[in-house]
Amino acid sequence: MIRLPPGIDVPITPRVRALVDTPEFRRLAKISQLGLVSLVYPAARHTRYEHSLGVYRVALGFLSRLGADERFAALVGPADAELLLAAALLHDLGHWPFCHPIEDIRLPKTPEHEHFANSFLLEGEVADTLRDDWGVNPRDLVTLLSGKPTDRKSRLLQTILSGPIDVDKIDYLMRDSLHAGVPYGRNFDEARLVMSLCVNQAGDGIAITEKGKTAAEMMVFARYVMFSEVYWHHTVRSATAMLQRAFYLLHKGLDLDALFRMSEQTMIDAMTTAAGDGPAAELLDGLFGPTRVLYKRLAQYSLFEQPELYGRLARKPYPWLARCAEQFASVASTRLGRIVAPHEVLFDSPPVELEVEFDIDVYYPKERCYRRLGEVSPVVRTLAREQFDDYVKRVRLFVHPRVAEDLRRLKNLPDLLAEAIDRT
Amino acid sequence: MIRLPPGIDVPITPRVRALVDTPEFRRLAKISQLGLVSLVYPAARHTRYEHSLGVYRVALGFLSRLGADERFAALVGPADAELLLAAALLHDLGHWPFCHPIEDIRLPKTPEHEHFANSFLLEGEVADTLRDDWGVNPRDLVTLLSGKPTDRKSRLLQTILSGPIDVDKIDYLMRDSLHAGVPYGRNFDEARLVMSLCVNQAGDGIAITEKGKTAAEMMVFARYVMFSEVYWHHTVRSATAMLQRAFYLLHKGLDLDALFRMSEQTMIDAMTTAAGDGPAAELLDGLFGPTRVLYKRLAQYSLFEQPELYGRLARKPYPWLARCAEQFASVASTRLGRIVAPHEVLFDSPPVELEVEFDIDVYYPKERCYRRLGEVSPVVRTLAREQFDDYVKRVRLFVHPRVAEDLRRLKNLPDLLAEAIDRT
Amino acid sequence: MIRLPPGIDVPITPRVRALVDTPEFRRLAKISQLGLVSLVYPAARHTRYEHSLGVYRVALGFLSRLGADERFAALVGPADAELLLAAALLHDLGHWPFCHPIEDIRLPKTPEHEHFANSFLLEGEVADTLRDDWGVNPRDLVTLLSGKPTDRKSRLLQTILSGPIDVDKIDYLMRDSLHAGVPYGRNFDEARLVMSLCVNQAGDGIAITEKGKTAAEMMVFARYVMFSEVYWHHTVRSATAMLQRAFYLLHKGLDLDALFRMSEQTMIDAMTTAAGDGPAAELLDGLFGPTRVLYKRLAQYSLFEQPELYGRLARKPYPWLARCAEQFASVASTRLGRIVAPHEVLFDSPPVELEVEFDIDVYYPKERCYRRLGEVSPVVRTLAREQFDDYVKRVRLFVHPRVAEDLRRLKNLPDLLAEAIDRT
Amino acid sequence: MIRLPPGIDVPITPRVRALVDTPEFRRLAKISQLGLVSLVYPAARHTRYEHSLGVYRVALGFLSRLGADERFAALVGPADAELLLAAALLHDLGHWPFCHPIEDIRLPKTPEHEHFANSFLLEGEVADTLRDDWGVNPRDLVTLLSGKPTDRKSRLLQTILSGPIDVDKIDYLMRDSLHAGVPYGRNFDEARLVMSLCVNQAGDGIAITEKGKTAAEMMVFARYVMFSEVYWHHTVRSATAMLQRAFYLLHKGLDLDALFRMSEQTMIDAMTTAAGDGPAAELLDGLFGPTRVLYKRLAQYSLFEQPELYGRLARKPYPWLARCAEQFASVASTRLGRIVAPHEVLFDSPPVELEVEFDIDVYYPKERCYRRLGEVSPVVRTLAREQFDDYVKRVRLFVHPRVAEDLRRLKNLPDLLAEAIDRT
Repeated sequence: MIRLPPGIDVPITPRVRALVDTPEFRRLAKISQLGLVSLVYPAARHTRYEHSLGVYRVALGFLSRLGADERFAALVGPADAELLLAAALLHDLGHWPFCHPIEDIRLPKTPEHEHFANSFLLEGEVADTLRDDWGVNPRDLVTLLSGKPTDRKSRLLQTILSGPIDVDKIDYLMRDSLHAGVPYGRNFDEARLVMSLCVNQAGDGIAITEKGKTAAEMMVFARYVMFSEVYWHHTVRSATAMLQRAFYLLHKGLDLDALFRMSEQTMIDAMTTAAGDGPAAELLDGLFGPTRVLYKRLAQYSLFEQPELYGRLARKPYPWLARCAEQFASVASTRLGRIVAPHEVLFDSPPVELEVEFDIDVYYPKERCYRRLGEVSPVVRTLAREQFDDYVKRVRLFVHPRVAEDLRRLKNLPDLLAEAIDRT
Repeated sequence: MIRLPPGIDVPITPRVRALVDTPEFRRLAKISQLGLVSLVYPAARHTRYEHSLGVYRVALGFLSRLGADERFAALVGPADAELLLAAALLHDLGHWPFCHPIEDIRLPKTPEHEHFANSFLLEGEVADTLRDDWGVNPRDLVTLLSGKPTDRKSRLLQTILSGPIDVDKIDYLMRDSLHAGVPYGRNFDEARLVMSLCVNQAGDGIAITEKGKTAAEMMVFARYVMFSEVYWHHTVRSATAMLQRAFYLLHKGLDLDALFRMSEQTMIDAMTTAAGDGPAAELLDGLFGPTRVLYKRLAQYSLFEQPELYGRLARKPYPWLARCAEQFASVASTRLGRIVAPHEVLFDSPPVELEVEFDIDVYYPKERCYRRLGEVSPVVRTLAREQFDDYVKRVRLFVHPRVAEDLRRLKNLPDLLAEAIDRT
Repeated sequence: MIRLPPGIDVPITPRVRALVDTPEFRRLAKISQLGLVSLVYPAARHTRYEHSLGVYRVALGFLSRLGADERFAALVGPADAELLLAAALLHDLGHWPFCHPIEDIRLPKTPEHEHFANSFLLEGEVADTLRDDWGVNPRDLVTLLSGKPTDRKSRLLQTILSGPIDVDKIDYLMRDSLHAGVPYGRNFDEARLVMSLCVNQAGDGIAITEKGKTAAEMMVFARYVMFSEVYWHHTVRSATAMLQRAFYLLHKGLDLDALFRMSEQTMIDAMTTAAGDGPAAELLDGLFGPTRVLYKRLAQYSLFEQPELYGRLARKPYPWLARCAEQFASVASTRLGRIVAPHEVLFDSPPVELEVEFDIDVYYPKERCYRRLGEVSPVVRTLAREQFDDYVKRVRLFVHPRVAEDLRRLKNLPDLLAEAIDRT
Repeated sequence: MIRLPPGIDVPITPRVRALVDTPEFRRLAKISQLGLVSLVYPAARHTRYEHSLGVYRVALGFLSRLGADERFAALVGPADAELLLAAALLHDLGHWPFCHPIEDIRLPKTPEHEHFANSFLLEGEVADTLRDDWGVNPRDLVTLLSGKPTDRKSRLLQTILSGPIDVDKIDYLMRDSLHAGVPYGRNFDEARLVMSLCVNQAGDGIAITEKGKTAAEMMVFARYVMFSEVYWHHTVRSATAMLQRAFYLLHKGLDLDALFRMSEQTMIDAMTTAAGDGPAAELLDGLFGPTRVLYKRLAQYSLFEQPELYGRLARKPYPWLARCAEQFASVASTRLGRIVAPHEVLFDSPPVELEVEFDIDVYYPKERCYRRLGEVSPVVRTLAREQFDDYVKRVRLFVHPRVAEDLRRLKNLPDLLAEAIDRT
């Protein structure tokens, strides 16, 4: 048993123990789940190690429920179930520190973390343990985690690992919420949701019965609130923009493959070394140095209130945003008659992908029919299409505190910004 | 101190104690908050006494926060605050057992419970205590609770007692959820919500600041889920329809004024006596007798799936619905060749009023402006306009178990129903 | 499924449903678990119906764990397990309202509630359902619940139903605590305790492994705190003493067998009718009438602080205590020069049995030996031998509020009391 | 506001913010509260930064309650209260990583952490902020935190910071319990305890009223369980023994003053560098390296079961224990015919101080007298005198896994141990 909050005993059999004790898995104990969020929610320091154990526990619950479903049981045998459990436990093995912000920069060199994971899964102690103790071919695990299978069984198993209602989200919403000290991501009635699991109409994915509909709505809503209040908290976005800029400034000089195999602290140390006396040093020092110095919000634009400026900045490629911020620094320097350094201005803009998925079947046993969740739930539809991406995510301008006061006195900020955009 | 779940100490000063110990208030200890819900959620047996103490506690929190708001403090003095506290404590004094289902029948004789309350407030021990120990004129309390004041101060205080975010809802959502054993109505971050309270733009109602916006959305969502899973649970609706019919059958022979002053059990006893051997006796016995016999759901129609039938039955006056059910029993009797008694068929239909209110201002301090919650929150807008009334509330046909099987075998139920409607 | 607080889904199979829907079981929905406690903790109104479902759920957990224990599985087969589940569900069937206070009076006519239960179990719908749906001989159930079997298997099963760590206590400590709104009886790590269950050395009772030792200590401690703060709260004792006196005054005129088959409210009504205008009427009216009038504490004596007076009054038969209180009323009347009526004085004294049981084996797997919990845990030993009965339970004198002030002015109360004792 | 689990908003005024943002305070965000415990409870990674904010919040509650106590208010003015708040916030400033295990070694060079703290408090940004923003003389703060004042007021304030019921323990028991995922240290009814605070008989310390007695017992019990299951968990002790030996081996070559000013990770890095290829390297690598290798328990001895061996090893100075372990390694090497390296054997022995304090007054308002908690509570007395130190803390022998199996096969381990003790 390993005890996790909130009072959960994760059963640890010898072969689970063997995986958990590999250096590859142990590394997850040195990577925090939420990265920079702890600069705002200081208790949110939980690790991907804890989360991975939590996901494994949720997967046990899924299998226990789905094992009683005839259509599931006809398709998924004991060996498949074990493969799924191993995949649940190891699904984050390829995560590197600050994975999501770095991926959002979309540098051509950045590996996808699913593929990056393969090197951890196909060689070394994890692969040995899978083969020897689990009777699992590591390549099958890799396929399940990141392949594009066409057979129904594999696609069904994949939806358990990644989909609108998956073992990963159920754990992280609860766990992130718990450690941050907020009620938002908990309390979506996990037990009810899991009890309602079944197989979808096509037979290639999980679905829920009518009894789980409200719980599913609660989970979609919980996810929205966690994004609004935690993951996309404006101060978290400031820190994220700082890290992204520092990484962007340094990336050409970094050995990414080595870097991404490190623990969080080691990676910070490596980046700090690489930064030397350059502009990235100040950004990293503000995040990780003795004193926390976070950039201030100069302005924010939402689709709802400032559609035009929002439209010109949202979902732009990072290099363009960085150049645009640089142009803005230059424009502002001229206007203020003092130098605003390029790295003192950061533009934060919603990334390309939409976050809320809700594409899941709801089964109505009395009528023996399936309907889409989005079809039977206006609230889910609204969360997915409007509230989430259009209201929570905003374009924001962050600036170093030392220039914030001067910049706030600038008149016609939108015009200056338009000028910077035009120049980019 | 009186201790209430979940671990709350309600401070009881001598003059609060004096009110709480009056027979009028003590009567609330013999009226359950949720009435028939305990037939489905057996632990939901909490009383209006407990709830009233809970509302009083929430009101203390509101005042503690709003007292620090300049505009509020300029308008509301200590005497007003005490009046408000007394009103919070006594707001349910006029509730009689099964108040809401009986009001939904809309009999001309039924008093409004706010007005019915006046007799409890203006005479007897409560009135004496208010005058002697609180220095409060009972008539002022009555005005605050059920008047239509035009001055800003009174309207402001009224929105604390009854509005989209009021002391009543905050307590009952949490408390009903807690006792039912469900997570749905809790966890909307009451502390955050209360901390964000301020005065609205017009100065005649409470509002919230931007910081409370997500908590407000959570509360609106919590209310939706409680309706969906508890208050409008289909079995609760069956029991409600049974009680309504029994009351409707009996009401001409009942002394409503005396009845509504009783405790819950005494009222049940009085109704049972009045029912004698008539059809209401079977309905009451199924609800309150030694064996629970609840009517079965024969069919349900929603705006979304069966708009036509829904449209013909929703929001109809109770007498019409009762007659229509009678017609249906007659039609079905003919078709089946056996008698279906009129009281064996009950039609349950959404009442006239919409439930979700969201008409509250949100204050944005940086921009010094107010916006409507419905304007800045698509999810609240959707909950209020679509999800709630159109998706949760349905038209339902309930029938006695002894006829259910036969009736389920009937072909063309919609046609029979249309025939019954046409005849009514 | 039936949902109970705190968020538990009790699985209800058709044959469990059949038992739960009998009038005998349904009657438990009209008997509160804690009786008079709700006069102090107003939310503690949960029923024996709810508790019985909770005990059934805990029993499922016990069996799930013990089924994996070789020695248990060798002894207890599927039919035994089903018998145990039925017994867990039905263990309280013979409870009547205010059962414990009435039993503590120890009237010769009072049936033991275990034996009283037999009439509910051996005839009527419960017996039919057991035979027809469960394949259980009702007599076997009666034997398991209240017999004195000599075979190891039956004794083992009995310790699950009643012992230091049993399914009943695990549920009621948690549930009473939850509804009262106090943390005291929860949080003893039920999951850990259940996971540590095994069979004792003799093979005729359950035991715990070393891993459960701390959880067992926590449960013993939780029980102590619940007694101290809830069950033996001094105001609860006042109400209890009032009820006991009323019942004692009335019992000769009551048909106990009929009375004890009633619901709580019906029994109160019957006692009130029997009381007429006699002294019991005032006692019952103070407890159950429109206004709560509880007797005041005049004095209390503990073994620790007033060993002599405590020794003369503790663990005395109820008739003696009633006579002694009467003598005290007479002595006090003389001294005060005004009449103190006999029923205005109540003596409350610890009953004969000690409450804390801790006689359970702890198994140490490394050393392959068993030790008694009291032997390896000084804190359990102390709770059982000293703290509980000597410190929590006290001798108390309660008097009607109308005479309290006068009596409090009496000098030399201990002397008057000694005089009353001498006269009795 | 800073949000901490479980759902607490810590109010952050500008001058609290100023302290919290100093590098000295920020350093606490890089020191974990429980050090090696996260090797066993993986979620227990919370920091002294979080804890310090939590203690500050508890101190606000203490002052809010005690401010209403006449005797307290007569002695402690607003300036004293502010000094206390600053002290609560800064009480851990002098903690270095792994402080307690290192202090238990009792090296002459090790600074006391209270005194070590002075350098952080008397100079640098914290001192400036105290002087400029708080109007507090840093020297007064140092005196309050670590002086031996003789005036009643200062002694009273000190008992709030450190005593049987202090702001530190109330936060850490709850917080450690929460993050570890165990219920043990929570749920001691903090609100009730704080509500019962008053001044002791002598006027130089806090006390509790009778109403808080049970909560105080619960807190003492909670502390016992946390020690038993978390702080002194046998695997935590193994890790602790490993760290202590590594530090003991390295300490002569370390610049302790510099080391103790580092963050946790930096200190680990510094020790690892100092260890080079020596025996300490293996110990540190087992704790902090890519693979977790913890020493196995070879034997344990308790006062209760093996009084003689326990008596010869308990409460011995660390250098003696290290030599004795070395002798044992030598004796075992001879017996096994293979080399057991000195650092492969670790002896863990209870330190000198007893842990449970319970020396607090309980005030009985009706009798207007004070009694000691230990006097009125047998359970507290037992926990303090017997259970805690004699039952929880044991002498343990830990050995490297690579030699564990061989050593376990040794016959007459106690004799070998006696031989090693004799030789030391």
